[in-house]
Amino acid sequence: MTTHRLTPSRFFNTLGPHEPALHVADGDRVVAATLDAVGGDDAGVARASRPNPMTGPIFVEGAEPGDALHITIESLRPTRATGWSRNTLAPNVVDPDFVPSLPERQTHEWAIDPDAGSVRLLAPFAETGDLVLPLAPMIGCFGVAPAGGEAISTATSGPHGGNMDWRGFRPGASVAFPVGVPGALFFLGDGHARQGDGEIVGTGVETSFEMTVALRVQKGRSIAWPRGEDAAGIFTIGNARPLDQALQHATTEMLRRLGEDYGLDRAGASHLLGQAVRYEIANVFNPAYTVVCRVPADVLPDVPARSR
Amino acid sequence: MTTHRLTPSRFFNTLGPHEPALHVADGDRVVAATLDAVGGDDAGVARASRPNPMTGPIFVEGAEPGDALHITIESLRPTRATGWSRNTLAPNVVDPDFVPSLPERQTHEWAIDPDAGSVRLLAPFAETGDLVLPLAPMIGCFGVAPAGGEAISTATSGPHGGNMDWRGFRPGASVAFPVGVPGALFFLGDGHARQGDGEIVGTGVETSFEMTVALRVQKGRSIAWPRGEDAAGIFTIGNARPLDQALQHATTEMLRRLGEDYGLDRAGASHLLGQAVRYEIANVFNPAYTVVCRVPADVLPDVPARSR
Amino acid sequence: MTTHRLTPSRFFNTLGPHEPALHVADGDRVVAATLDAVGGDDAGVARASRPNPMTGPIFVEGAEPGDALHITIESLRPTRATGWSRNTLAPNVVDPDFVPSLPERQTHEWAIDPDAGSVRLLAPFAETGDLVLPLAPMIGCFGVAPAGGEAISTATSGPHGGNMDWRGFRPGASVAFPVGVPGALFFLGDGHARQGDGEIVGTGVETSFEMTVALRVQKGRSIAWPRGEDAAGIFTIGNARPLDQALQHATTEMLRRLGEDYGLDRAGASHLLGQAVRYEIANVFNPAYTVVCRVPADVLPDVPARSR
Amino acid sequence: MTTHRLTPSRFFNTLGPHEPALHVADGDRVVAATLDAVGGDDAGVARASRPNPMTGPIFVEGAEPGDALHITIESLRPTRATGWSRNTLAPNVVDPDFVPSLPERQTHEWAIDPDAGSVRLLAPFAETGDLVLPLAPMIGCFGVAPAGGEAISTATSGPHGGNMDWRGFRPGASVAFPVGVPGALFFLGDGHARQGDGEIVGTGVETSFEMTVALRVQKGRSIAWPRGEDAAGIFTIGNARPLDQALQHATTEMLRRLGEDYGLDRAGASHLLGQAVRYEIANVFNPAYTVVCRVPADVLPDVPARSR
Repeated sequence: MTTHRLTPSRFFNTLGPHEPALHVADGDRVVAATLDAVGGDDAGVARASRPNPMTGPIFVEGAEPGDALHITIESLRPTRATGWSRNTLAPNVVDPDFVPSLPERQTHEWAIDPDAGSVRLLAPFAETGDLVLPLAPMIGCFGVAPAGGEAISTATSGPHGGNMDWRGFRPGASVAFPVGVPGALFFLGDGHARQGDGEIVGTGVETSFEMTVALRVQKGRSIAWPRGEDAAGIFTIGNARPLDQALQHATTEMLRRLGEDYGLDRAGASHLLGQAVRYEIANVFNPAYTVVCRVPADVLPDVPARSR
Repeated sequence: MTTHRLTPSRFFNTLGPHEPALHVADGDRVVAATLDAVGGDDAGVARASRPNPMTGPIFVEGAEPGDALHITIESLRPTRATGWSRNTLAPNVVDPDFVPSLPERQTHEWAIDPDAGSVRLLAPFAETGDLVLPLAPMIGCFGVAPAGGEAISTATSGPHGGNMDWRGFRPGASVAFPVGVPGALFFLGDGHARQGDGEIVGTGVETSFEMTVALRVQKGRSIAWPRGEDAAGIFTIGNARPLDQALQHATTEMLRRLGEDYGLDRAGASHLLGQAVRYEIANVFNPAYTVVCRVPADVLPDVPARSR
Repeated sequence: MTTHRLTPSRFFNTLGPHEPALHVADGDRVVAATLDAVGGDDAGVARASRPNPMTGPIFVEGAEPGDALHITIESLRPTRATGWSRNTLAPNVVDPDFVPSLPERQTHEWAIDPDAGSVRLLAPFAETGDLVLPLAPMIGCFGVAPAGGEAISTATSGPHGGNMDWRGFRPGASVAFPVGVPGALFFLGDGHARQGDGEIVGTGVETSFEMTVALRVQKGRSIAWPRGEDAAGIFTIGNARPLDQALQHATTEMLRRLGEDYGLDRAGASHLLGQAVRYEIANVFNPAYTVVCRVPADVLPDVPARSR
Repeated sequence: MTTHRLTPSRFFNTLGPHEPALHVADGDRVVAATLDAVGGDDAGVARASRPNPMTGPIFVEGAEPGDALHITIESLRPTRATGWSRNTLAPNVVDPDFVPSLPERQTHEWAIDPDAGSVRLLAPFAETGDLVLPLAPMIGCFGVAPAGGEAISTATSGPHGGNMDWRGFRPGASVAFPVGVPGALFFLGDGHARQGDGEIVGTGVETSFEMTVALRVQKGRSIAWPRGEDAAGIFTIGNARPLDQALQHATTEMLRRLGEDYGLDRAGASHLLGQAVRYEIANVFNPAYTVVCRVPADVLPDVPARSR
């Protein structure tokens, strides 16, 4: 496994068929410098423009349409001592007639303390004290170039991944994307020091990162939506509006996966999901929302791993 | 605290202004026998008809519109050795063009073993063995008579509660409903031995129960949607279609609650929710879907409890 | 055909199993006095409270569950010289981040001139002059008692009808509702002197009316949603949130109707709908939205009318 | 006004920053040969692949981001004697549990008779005879390259236009798109000989066309969504899922337009829309649905045209 360092001078606001910034072999590791959502680098200097400027693309040798590109998130290290977030709920996550009661939108800063493992809001919170929360780094936007010649804004997401803004994309998790073009063309960026479910203020704690990922080609693994796994179990991802449709995509993909990877027929898979599935609402803010369908590890049939 | 036993001979398929089956004082406990979703009792004999025949209503002295009725779920004891569920995902939770691939709908039985703390599917599952899952009893349908003279089917839900089908309504959890009529008129039933998120096969493991709850009137606590708490923290409930709207109701109610109960202004509450909120999809099957908005206990401001 | 006059002293805010105000025979005509949406009578005096107090119920002899109750709207005569409406779009019909740009909600008056056949806004409109629009009376809320013992608020709608707020419910139109209880128990009220598609300010031009309808029992006509006809053709009604689901209900009902009433198989009906269907958005304001699915008269197969 | 003929040898499946096939001056007319939705030309020979291969792009001199490109549809002439459609409703437009009742998807042919002004289904319809409907040509997919470097599939739509599949895009109608890149880069294709509302079988009567359009640059006309006009009045277009959001986009854009072009303040515009707006459901099939918001010509204030 070769380790590559990628510190780009050019960034992209779409996931599409752009000129590769790096070529790697199947199985290689990449340590990538990423900007924050509006282009700020590790010194807080703007080096690209919004939305979510991407590091990449990375051409992975051997990846072809019909394969999957499997990403393991090895580490996410914030490279600034501060991040920022918005101070108000997005208008689409509250009752429409409540919208005028929301505060005016501002950007507030957070201190990031990797040693203490925490983030602290640098603005007044409550009479009882500051708002201090655990540091929990995650990738906001990553994925591959879509099929069909599309170049899709990093503001949104689709079968190819993109701006999914899920707090579950943290170190230890892995995820496979359907390869749409030769070489897959993998992009990553938009790191958050922390985020709640739904990204309901429209941001996490946004900052620059050093992201370490390993890339593996899964030949002939044909998937329709991202499929992943972490210590808690396996998951599938659906990206669409409204939430109902995102949930349909994720659930359908999980039903297929339980057949392909665990040998369950439709009734068996339905029983397992009906009585044990878990859903997470990753983001309910972007043009496409993201719903995660999970099956906990301890209820999965104990079969030999296939293409997983 | 007086303990009442309620084993009714008459059941209701709507939550509405029906004749009380029992009068209790503020703070009393009720041990209620409940039927399964299609009316089966502890001997499996049909004693009422679908949907979700309710035990009750219970008139709580002192409860008036403008108050909340606070329910603590003390215990849920299955009273049959078997339950049943459906064997196929509901057509609305998969991609529309995938619907014809679903198996034909059948009802399958489960063995319930309270000593082992498990439920076991009494139908073939996988080559590797049976499907055995932890017993995790919950209340599918409960709530109060709605305001405005409505009588609402137990198939659906609203601000008054109803058929929310959330696996979080388990022993140790409590929840307050907005009182709509004098005496509140509390109903309960539709117990599940277990259920996944979303109730995506349209059922949990359905069976009869003995449910023990304590009822407390919260005078002058004006709430718009159910608000509860459990060991993990506090939560609010939104019931509507689509999921987006259910989420809006729950989130708006939580924003109000964080102000009323924890003294947070809108910006402070937004910061807390933005970086720490958790959502659960309770059901995505009933005419109204149910979304739960949660704030974990360990991130809540440490203020003296008010009307909580 | 006997003609009855109904000028009630008691009004209802739910469609449910209430004591009949009138008994009529199959085929009779009723001339009913109705209040406006907040209870104002022909003198502008408040005689009942919101929402949409109903005149009725009318017990129709011979109507049983499994039948349909067919209503022909013969005339709608405003009984006041003024009506009122709101001055701002509802927050749910604009982009969420646009909501704060909406004007503060007020009620404005309109003059109703039946001789001129117009309504005129009694508030400033544009530099070029007043806002004068054609008088186009319609019924906002009508229907029958639901099945299953429900009593449903007149704020919303369902298979039983209710607050559909469609400008197409005007003189000359007829519509059948599925009978849910013996005698059908028909209610009507909430007349509008005029309304655009969608009722997007949350009101039409609201006023009191004298409504004349004929009621006919269609024995054994089993329908799932309201089905009607007017000079332009036939239509079906779906009531639900979101619009997508209301459209699904209306479209499915039309597919069934084209089979039952016109002998078209599924493929034939699909071809006809695919290339000739018309949709109308009746209301996108109430708790349940209403979508109308239409087939124009001139493209319908020329078959003998059956139960139509 | 110069007239250009464009009969391309290369076609595009995305609207994006592709090499122009033609440069024209502001105000010029283009007569363009277009393929059907799967690439069939006037001889029925496949010359490109799905979805909706586009003729273009056309670079319009002087068009810059911040301007609008105004298209007048002058004529649409089918260039084949046949078209095709699907024989079954799309699964997303019927109730989910009704989907298994839909016929298997097939493609059926139609005869197109321009002299008779009709299309005739070349498959069995009803006992009473064939299905013959008026010929009513329309453009399914057209628009400009999006801003931000995106290349968007011709299967879907957005602020830039695209696959809106509205039967109102017929000769005599005009529409302006927001310019996203220098020269606008206009594309067109996917003509239908006829289509109902919603494109609910997933197709119109698909065929090849000769399309004649005039292109005009509207300097400094900043619009968020397509805005158009025809003999019946003015309209705005919203493209999104679900229908509710498409309607929000279209309604918000109309509120802005009534201010900019007709001098109406928000309350005045709300009164006009509330009591006179018309909605059309253009398509409820594509990844983004399309809703049209209309104000009839006879109720518009009589002000001098500005940038219209």
